[in-house]
Amino acid sequence: MARQTRERILGTSLALFNARGEPNVSTNHIADELGISPGNLYYHFRSKDDIVEHLFARYETRLDEALLLPEGRVPDLEDIWLQLHLVFESLREYRFVYRDLVDILARNRKLKLRFARIMVRADASITALLRGLAGAGAIRASADEIRALVENILLIATFWMNFDAVRGGKTHADEVDLNRGIHQVMMLVAPFLRDAERHHLNALAATYLR
Amino acid sequence: MARQTRERILGTSLALFNARGEPNVSTNHIADELGISPGNLYYHFRSKDDIVEHLFARYETRLDEALLLPEGRVPDLEDIWLQLHLVFESLREYRFVYRDLVDILARNRKLKLRFARIMVRADASITALLRGLAGAGAIRASADEIRALVENILLIATFWMNFDAVRGGKTHADEVDLNRGIHQVMMLVAPFLRDAERHHLNALAATYLR
Repeated sequence: MARQTRERILGTSLALFNARGEPNVSTNHIADELGISPGNLYYHFRSKDDIVEHLFARYETRLDEALLLPEGRVPDLEDIWLQLHLVFESLREYRFVYRDLVDILARNRKLKLRFARIMVRADASITALLRGLAGAGAIRASADEIRALVENILLIATFWMNFDAVRGGKTHADEVDLNRGIHQVMMLVAPFLRDAERHHLNALAATYLR
Repeated sequence: MARQTRERILGTSLALFNARGEPNVSTNHIADELGISPGNLYYHFRSKDDIVEHLFARYETRLDEALLLPEGRVPDLEDIWLQLHLVFESLREYRFVYRDLVDILARNRKLKLRFARIMVRADASITALLRGLAGAGAIRASADEIRALVENILLIATFWMNFDAVRGGKTHADEVDLNRGIHQVMMLVAPFLRDAERHHLNALAATYLR
């Protein structure tokens, strides 16, 4: 029962943070939405930051799973697209982290360190993937180019939803267009492919815009 | 004299917003910092939003100047680097806009529309530049590739400072490393260049990391 309430608090907090932005949601809002007293909420979590940290830990686990590389074989292009989808799905599921990223990390040193660690792991994972592709001759890129490419992939994945939000139309974070984000990452990689794969990828990428 | 006070209010607000983040600075902080009364501040600006809008208008002018293309000739690679430098300098000068971009635009519909307009103009300017280079044979890229490239350039320029901040070391926005941002944009364009230019650019880009 206590455990069920804990889960409900986390689930409702995630939904509210995603919909309104974490800085705009108080523990009172969360208790109200659940129809429980603030006292009951504080019995389970000692502060809003405590809730944020728990959600962040789940997000970290979710993202790590998405970043797993295939074992026992060299990754191919299909592996990249699968990984990209899983990563973007995780980002959307915990999008409150990204909407106010600078602010949230500036306020909480623990999360700042954790986020930096996540970036280091994502960097390592994408680098391994691209080096594998370069080693197999699927892409043609120098070590410097791979380094810069990895950094640009990280930047675009991290800020795609914010870019989509500030750019124009979108009023609700729910409408975030993940396919266009995935398309933009694909297009980063495309110019490093051999001509045949590049045309293939461009055709594939175009289907993401429909 | 009134005009001078107005200028001092704008200058001090910009410095405080940049240093602490706009959501964390109140009109009282600004008045305090200037050693004037809140009443005096309100004589010049009716609210903090009013100050933010004035600064935003200046930023818009500044960025539009940075985005001007050379007249009467086809732009070359040197033009891109010059433009990149000027654009990144403008972003740094008004970095508070970017630090809390999603939040600021969500709170102020007028700024949201203005920012969308800025993006449309920047998009048009970069597209013209790249089409010019493609037309002159300096880069090899399809219309789709140019479209995606422009979008990635915009995203990276818009969120470079935030990426730099959340990624790791930086604790002060003042330390933002513009050269690395410029390097990352260069590396987006590099793979579309002919081999000779690509090697030249990679060598040039590497100097930005020293």
